Amino acid sequence: MARWEPGARERLIVAAVDLFTEQGYDATTVAQIAERAGVTKSTFFRHFPDKRELLVAGQETLSRLLAEGIAEAPVSAGPLEAVAAGLERASSAMGPMNRELGPRLKAAVAASAELQGRDALKSVSLAAAMTTALVTRGVPDPTAHLAGELGVLAFKRGYAEWSESDRDSEDELAQHTLKALDELQAASASLG
Amino acid sequence: MARWEPGARERLIVAAVDLFTEQGYDATTVAQIAERAGVTKSTFFRHFPDKRELLVAGQETLSRLLAEGIAEAPVSAGPLEAVAAGLERASSAMGPMNRELGPRLKAAVAASAELQGRDALKSVSLAAAMTTALVTRGVPDPTAHLAGELGVLAFKRGYAEWSESDRDSEDELAQHTLKALDELQAASASLG
Repeated sequence: MARWEPGARERLIVAAVDLFTEQGYDATTVAQIAERAGVTKSTFFRHFPDKRELLVAGQETLSRLLAEGIAEAPVSAGPLEAVAAGLERASSAMGPMNRELGPRLKAAVAASAELQGRDALKSVSLAAAMTTALVTRGVPDPTAHLAGELGVLAFKRGYAEWSESDRDSEDELAQHTLKALDELQAASASLG
Repeated sequence: MARWEPGARERLIVAAVDLFTEQGYDATTVAQIAERAGVTKSTFFRHFPDKRELLVAGQETLSRLLAEGIAEAPVSAGPLEAVAAGLERASSAMGPMNRELGPRLKAAVAASAELQGRDALKSVSLAAAMTTALVTRGVPDPTAHLAGELGVLAFKRGYAEWSESDRDSEDELAQHTLKALDELQAASASLG
């Protein structure tokens, strides 16, 4: 039972992820996705250039939110505090649909080499957005690079935990991503 | 002028990277690669399943060497010391051909979305190999995960530096990957 009121864009994403999981990514056509979502093919193309981009449609938004949060952190904030501000900003934009899609998305990606490549590129791009935002704050490389990578790890770990846990609970994504960042920071102290 | 004596496999890799750069990845066929390398198509297929895999052919070997180096590090070694042992083992397997290919490979990957995806997946797979080897040594998660990611960052930074610097010098890849790991470790102390 859906926990949100989906518009055409959301219905297309849900339909695509379900079809990818049921019959595989390669065997799924844009026409089938549109039909399952109850919209026309032209509606599909108003929202997405192709079926692959559909799965990573949130990437630009996510990159922008992460970078904005980092840019607007207090001047006194260290690199990881700035990353935490980025995670908080981006996490707050993710609602029930993102949570419900998590496990299905994971299954679809696991079943397709092409989606795995696209998903890996998404991580690269999020890390680059955070690294650039940190460099703009004056954080030197490789500290900025490392902090950007930690930010991606924290986001992915937090998102996995949030979307795999009890979806009726009221906890928000930000709690999980910030906790993951804390754990990674603690881990970095025991590396030597 | 080639600095190594290439066999069929090496000639195929060099021919493919050059063709990808000259005319694009999509426009390049297996037949063209084989012709440029002076071998038959069946020789190509004895070495690689397709043109995409050709570019990441070293991935399994690299993963295995990284994991072996980590597994065989002294019991007393901390997570990053074990990663350093993995980097040393893997780096020592890379010779003049790998160095010479670096910049050309970078250009080919930059020009193709598909190769970017495959390249990003390669990083994911190297990190996973190191993380698993560290967990087997008893390193707890997320420290193992973090150390594996640092290992990939160090390998990539070191390889870029090595393959972009004076190729007539005698320095070996290991010097660069180990220096990059040291820098990342220092950077992790200034994250907070």
